[in-house]
Order: sequence, then structure tokens, then C-alpha cells
Amino acid sequence: MKKIFAEFFGTYWLVFGGCGSALFAAGIPDLGIGFMGVSLAFGLTVLTMAYAVGHISGGHFNPAVSIGLWAGGRFSAKDLPSYITAQCVGAIAAAATLYTILIGKPGFTIDNTKAGAFASNGFGAFSPDGYNLESAFLAEFVLTAFFVIIILGATDKFANGKFAGIAIGLALTLIHLISIPITNTSVNPARSLSQAIFAGGEPLTQVWLFWLAPIVGAVFGGFIYKALLEKKDE
Amino acid sequence: MKKIFAEFFGTYWLVFGGCGSALFAAGIPDLGIGFMGVSLAFGLTVLTMAYAVGHISGGHFNPAVSIGLWAGGRFSAKDLPSYITAQCVGAIAAAATLYTILIGKPGFTIDNTKAGAFASNGFGAFSPDGYNLESAFLAEFVLTAFFVIIILGATDKFANGKFAGIAIGLALTLIHLISIPITNTSVNPARSLSQAIFAGGEPLTQVWLFWLAPIVGAVFGGFIYKALLEKKDE
Amino acid sequence: MKKIFAEFFGTYWLVFGGCGSALFAAGIPDLGIGFMGVSLAFGLTVLTMAYAVGHISGGHFNPAVSIGLWAGGRFSAKDLPSYITAQCVGAIAAAATLYTILIGKPGFTIDNTKAGAFASNGFGAFSPDGYNLESAFLAEFVLTAFFVIIILGATDKFANGKFAGIAIGLALTLIHLISIPITNTSVNPARSLSQAIFAGGEPLTQVWLFWLAPIVGAVFGGFIYKALLEKKDE
Amino acid sequence: MKKIFAEFFGTYWLVFGGCGSALFAAGIPDLGIGFMGVSLAFGLTVLTMAYAVGHISGGHFNPAVSIGLWAGGRFSAKDLPSYITAQCVGAIAAAATLYTILIGKPGFTIDNTKAGAFASNGFGAFSPDGYNLESAFLAEFVLTAFFVIIILGATDKFANGKFAGIAIGLALTLIHLISIPITNTSVNPARSLSQAIFAGGEPLTQVWLFWLAPIVGAVFGGFIYKALLEKKDE
Repeated sequence: MKKIFAEFFGTYWLVFGGCGSALFAAGIPDLGIGFMGVSLAFGLTVLTMAYAVGHISGGHFNPAVSIGLWAGGRFSAKDLPSYITAQCVGAIAAAATLYTILIGKPGFTIDNTKAGAFASNGFGAFSPDGYNLESAFLAEFVLTAFFVIIILGATDKFANGKFAGIAIGLALTLIHLISIPITNTSVNPARSLSQAIFAGGEPLTQVWLFWLAPIVGAVFGGFIYKALLEKKDE
Repeated sequence: MKKIFAEFFGTYWLVFGGCGSALFAAGIPDLGIGFMGVSLAFGLTVLTMAYAVGHISGGHFNPAVSIGLWAGGRFSAKDLPSYITAQCVGAIAAAATLYTILIGKPGFTIDNTKAGAFASNGFGAFSPDGYNLESAFLAEFVLTAFFVIIILGATDKFANGKFAGIAIGLALTLIHLISIPITNTSVNPARSLSQAIFAGGEPLTQVWLFWLAPIVGAVFGGFIYKALLEKKDE
Repeated sequence: MKKIFAEFFGTYWLVFGGCGSALFAAGIPDLGIGFMGVSLAFGLTVLTMAYAVGHISGGHFNPAVSIGLWAGGRFSAKDLPSYITAQCVGAIAAAATLYTILIGKPGFTIDNTKAGAFASNGFGAFSPDGYNLESAFLAEFVLTAFFVIIILGATDKFANGKFAGIAIGLALTLIHLISIPITNTSVNPARSLSQAIFAGGEPLTQVWLFWLAPIVGAVFGGFIYKALLEKKDE
Repeated sequence: MKKIFAEFFGTYWLVFGGCGSALFAAGIPDLGIGFMGVSLAFGLTVLTMAYAVGHISGGHFNPAVSIGLWAGGRFSAKDLPSYITAQCVGAIAAAATLYTILIGKPGFTIDNTKAGAFASNGFGAFSPDGYNLESAFLAEFVLTAFFVIIILGATDKFANGKFAGIAIGLALTLIHLISIPITNTSVNPARSLSQAIFAGGEPLTQVWLFWLAPIVGAVFGGFIYKALLEKKDE
């Protein structure tokens, strides 16, 4: 049960911090944090919670990561439903909190005819820089595959595992530095779902891609690590 | 007594570095560090002092953190008065130093009719991006609660405690990345008090919120960690 | 064989993440990550993969580094061909992926009459800020020499080796902070080759410098470390 | 002798990377790294070299640090002359390299009638944002005092010493985030000397302040740590 709470709070923090920094602070004229600051914020949500509750739940905070760790042989399939549920509930709770704060700002509205509405993910007309579906899929696939490879590698028993929280958190920062203009960056189906629910409209219609591509990428990454990289016991 | 000096110097550094970077460097045209640089500066004050004097006092530098650690069962109530006093005195001394440096710049004045005067915190007309009292309270409450959860988790005996200074310092960076536009970010009553004293006027009138919300959030975070997340001894 | 895969995936990630952040995200108006974000991205590719697969291959991801480690007495000459081949193939595969994603954005073209086309390196008219061949050579030479000194030092048996991934990754960030305007920053012949192949034209004609200068600098750095800095066994 | 080489190369890297990032990359329109990137660069020079050669010389790279460590009882007075000489020679060699690279850019000149010429430090008309002598002195004094307190604390035998390179490097980043607009940030007499020599004119006339204030601050910081913070042996 503590594991479930850890995943709930961890994913809450990921969405509150990552999407929150985008909604509150990215676009402030002159002083705003831009895509750089949002990238750092997403990574730091994971870095901070990995050191805070990683010893409780393993610190996934992301359904694609849980599935990728299962594909890599490090996580039990029977725990997937409870982890994924906790992650999605945590993400939605965070999105609700963000919405509650934002309505306290005069003039706040969600315009779901524009890319990135309520920090949602998208492709085509809903990609921040206009990338089509195929490019969006490919980017999310590659990035989630590498995210899982990094997680499996950094937590490998032959690796320098105490630094895994730094490597994994900063990997998420890196992933956002690369891909916010492509899809507004998902690699996390829970984060995509929560924002799409509040955005509604076309962003919600597109959310399937941000379940499919990260999960397929994560499974691929898990298999790649196990097949090509993992050292056998001596 | 060394603990008191450690909290004094640590909180001095937090205010001098965090508020100082905002006052000296954030708004320089073209080259300024913006909210991103201020966020990094606040976090680095804690990261650096956590490794420098954390072994002496525990490295709180923040009355809400001391109270949250008490709520989480990690700090003795009888030490609260001396810690909080040292933190407030350190913060005020830093603000005085900032003021002394700033008057050496021709044309410097504090305009306390504007949001963020002398790096003060505020809501409503004194929120940098116009958020109302309820949103300001909610943001400060959530952020301080998670700050305390991260501190309790990262320093848990089952956790990877040597990395706590990195996780906690960068948590403060993350908190600022999210919330400077909402309240100019407090999560620290000492930091709010010191700047409000020098700003005066409406910012000083609003300082109660930045004692109330962080402290209530910190107590909530402490209880949440103890009740839902903390592993029992084996 | 696992070493070869580790170098392949590591160099793929370096080019995909580093050059990808430059191509996708650096120049977005107002919100783009700029040279700062690209610098961070390059460093984080190495930091993340060093912790993920460093225990497998040593984590070079760069022909100049492999050669510099050989010069410093830490890597066997007989492994150079397979490492360098894996690095170049990984870099080219990443460049092909970047190209595939970019053609999904309406209006994408590579204009190889301009500096930095497809994130290629260059000097003279192809230096981002107009530095001539001599300056480009000197910058790449000095930066790669120090990169190798830092790698040899941080992984020295007398050093604090678990932090090497952080020191080496952030050294690459630092190198980019300094030199993107000079040469678009190589210090890595594989990264230069892959981007020049896709850019073609003059950037491809200039790629020799970005093999010569980093390799000569790396060998110099390796000798300097061994001759002047390395402690002898006690 | 290896200690002297370590200090030479370390200070070379500090000036080449820190001042180099300012000269090459800070002011590029739209994409430049600004004061934020320069701050990160200075810190990363120390972080990277601390892990690379810290085990050889202790990693001072700064005459004020060497003197502050002497004041704090951690460094022998008889080693001061050789360390400070190596630091100054390294800094000047780096400045010469920067100058050599810069003359390869058409139109490069040093205008020593302006603040920050060749990355020099200054006050009054030569302060980037116009701070007077008293403010410049106070800022350099406080910042160097805290820099030495952080160094002494992070390397204390009761502290978590393996993280000292991170804490100390990022302390220098923080110091720059605060104070580039005040004095262009020294806290390091060697770095001030090397840039002033190449800038000449008024910046060279002002260089005395950037020996006096950092050294006085460093001695003060050393005494403060020893008197008020340092735990006694048990």
C-alpha cells in the first residue's frame, strides 16, 4: 500500500511540477523560463521524488516506465494494474489542482483549438512546431525506448546505482529539451491523459498516440536492454 | 550553539543568494538570468549550505521546514524557538546587506506599490502574474507540503541519504520554476519576513499568508509522510 | 559484443539528443532553449549514458575520447577500430532518425550554404560567429585536450570515480557553453561526420578539421595527464 | 610538482571556460547563453576539475581560496607562494589563448572604456550595472567569505566530502548568478588579474579591488568557519 501512495504522490508531483511550470511560468514575457525551464522542472520532479520515495516504490511515476521495466524483466506484471492506476489518479489529481490555481488568475481560459492547451500533448496542428503524426510517433517511440534503457542501465546491479535518481531525472530533462516542439513531450501516458481530460476537444482525441507510442517504445527499450546490453551473472 | 550559527549563516545565504539574484540579475536586459536563474540560485543556496553545514544543524534554513520536520517526528519541539529565531535573524541580516549593496547603484529605489518589490512575496495585485489569495494559498500549501515530503523521504534511514542535499536543493529550484509568477515563491516564512520588512507597505501587510500557508503545508506534508509513506523498522 | 552495442547506443543518444535539441528546439521564438539548452542537452546525453552503460563499455561515445584514453594508457589500441566504427555507425543512425523526424515538419529543408546546417560543424563562413580556421582548430584542440584530461582524472584510481559520469557529462556541457559560436562545437569526430553527411556541400568539405583537431587535442591531453598529473602507484 | 601542474591546468580551465563563455557566447543575439550560461560555465570549470585533479592538489584554482584555507587551518602558508604563482600563470595563459582565438574573428577589438572589457571586473563606471566601489567591495567580500565557508564545510571530515566538488562548483555558479551585474564577479584574484592585463586601461587600474576584497573576505570566511562552525574532534 505504501508503494501505491508513493506512485500516487510521485506522479502528482511530476504533473504538478512539470505541467505547472509550463502553465504558470514558461511564457511570462522577458523573465519566463521557456522550454528550458520546463525541461528542467520535469526532470527535477523525478530526481527529487526518486530520492524521496524511490526506496518505497522504485519511483516509476509513469505507466510506460512500469511496462518497460516489466519488459526488461525487473517488474512483476501482477503489480502493473495497481501502479498504473495510482499513476493516473495522481496525474489527474495534480491537473485538477493546477486548474484550481489557474482559475484564480483573472482572464484564465483553456483554448483547446491551439497546440499545447493546458500543457496537453499533440501532433499535426496540435504539435507546438507542426510535426505530423509519423514524426510524433517516431520521436515518442525513440525517446521512451532510451528512457527505459537508461533506467534499466542506471539501476543495473553492475552499475553505480546510487546515482540512478540523478541519471533518470536528468534523462527526462534531456528528453524535454529535445522534443517539446515536436509533441509538447509525453513519454508518459499518465501525464498525457490528465492534461487531455482537462483540455478536452482535439487534444483529448489525440491522446491515444501518447499511450501507444511511449508504451511500444518502452517495451522495445526493455527488450533491447535485456537482449543486447545486460551483463549476465558471473 | 554551533547549530544556531549554522542556521543563521545558512538562512543568510539563502536570502542573500536567492533574493539577491532576483534583485541584482533577473531583469538585466538581454543578458539577465530571469526566473530560471533565480530558481537555480535559490536551490543552490540550499544545496551548497546543506553540504557545508548540514552535518552541524541538519540544514533547515526555513521555519516551515523545522516545523514540518517536527510534524514528521524528526525534530524536537524544544529546538524550534532557537532555530526559527536564528533563521529570521539571518534572513533579516541578509536583506540588510542586499539593501546596502543596492543603495550603491545610482537611482535605486523600492517601489512597494508593485508586485515583487525588494523580492517580496504577494497575492492579488502583488502577485507577479495576478493570482488571487486562494490560489496563492493553495500553491504555497502544496509546494511546502511536497518540499517537506521530499526532505523527510530523502533523509529517511532507508533512503540514499548522502544525496539528500542535491535532492532538497533542487526541489527548491523546482518549486521556484513553478511558482514565481504566482506568489514570487515563498515556502519559507523567514525569507518572506525579511523582504517584507524592507519593502514595507502592502507587501508587509500580506506577509501573514507566507507564514500561514507554508507552515500549514509543512505540517500536512510531515503528517502525510509519517502516515502514508514511512516504512516501519524491521 | 555488448561493449559495441553500448558504444552504438551511447553515440546514437549523444547525436540524437545533442544535435536533436539544436535542430528541434534551439531557435523556437521566445521559448526556445538557445545555446544554453543545447549545451545542457549534449552534456546530459553523456551523463545519462555514462551511468546507464558506462559499466559495460566505459562510455566513450566519441572516437577522440577512445584515442585520448589510448594515449593516456587506459585503452587498448586493438579495440580502437571496433569502438570507432560503432560510434560512427551510431551517430549516422541518429542523424538519419533526426532527418526522418524533421521531414514530418512542413517546409523543412537543409540549407547547406549557411553555418550550422543540420547541426554541422564549420569554420570561416561556416562558423556560427565567423571564426577562422586557425581559431577553430585552436578551440577544438584545447577543448578536447581538457575533455580527455578531465576523463582521465575523474576516472583515476586515486579519484572519486563514482562521480565521473557527472564530471564528464557536465564537462561536455561546459565545452558547448564556450564554443558553439566558434565551430558549433565538435570535440567528437563521429558527431561531426554524421551531421556533415546529411548536410553535404561545404560542411562536408570542412569535416576533416573536426577529425584532425579533436584527435590531436585528445592525444595531447592524454600525454599531458600521464606525464604531468598522474600519480604513481604507491 | 604535480600539485603545481594541477593548479596551473585547473586555473587555466577556470579562466578559459568561464571568461571564454562570456566572451564567445554570452551576447550572441537570441541564442546566446547570457549571464545564466556564464554562471553555469564558471561553476562547471571548478566542478569538473575538482573531480579531475582535486585528488592531486586539493583543487583551489584561486589565490583567495588558498589563503582562505590557510586562514581556516587547512593549508600550509609555505605552499601559498607556489600555488598562487601557478594559479596566476595558468590564468594568464588562458587569457592569452582566449585572445588568440578572438583575433580570428573579423572585427574583434577590446574596448577598455566599457564595463566588462575582455571579461574584466570593475566598479563604478566599469560595473556592468553601475554599482559603486563600496557596493562592489561588500559584494565581493560577502561572496568570497561564503565561498570559503562552503569549501571548508563541504570538505570537513564530519561532512559528506565526496560531494564537495559538486557543492563547491555550484557555489561558484550561484555566486555568478548573484553578482555579474555588480562587478562582473571576481571572488578570484587570478581571474581578475589575467583579464585586466589584456584589457589594460581603467580595468587594469581597478584590479586592486579584486585582490583586496576577495582575499579579505576569504580570510574572514576562514576565521568564521573555524571559530563558529567547526566541530571539535571527539
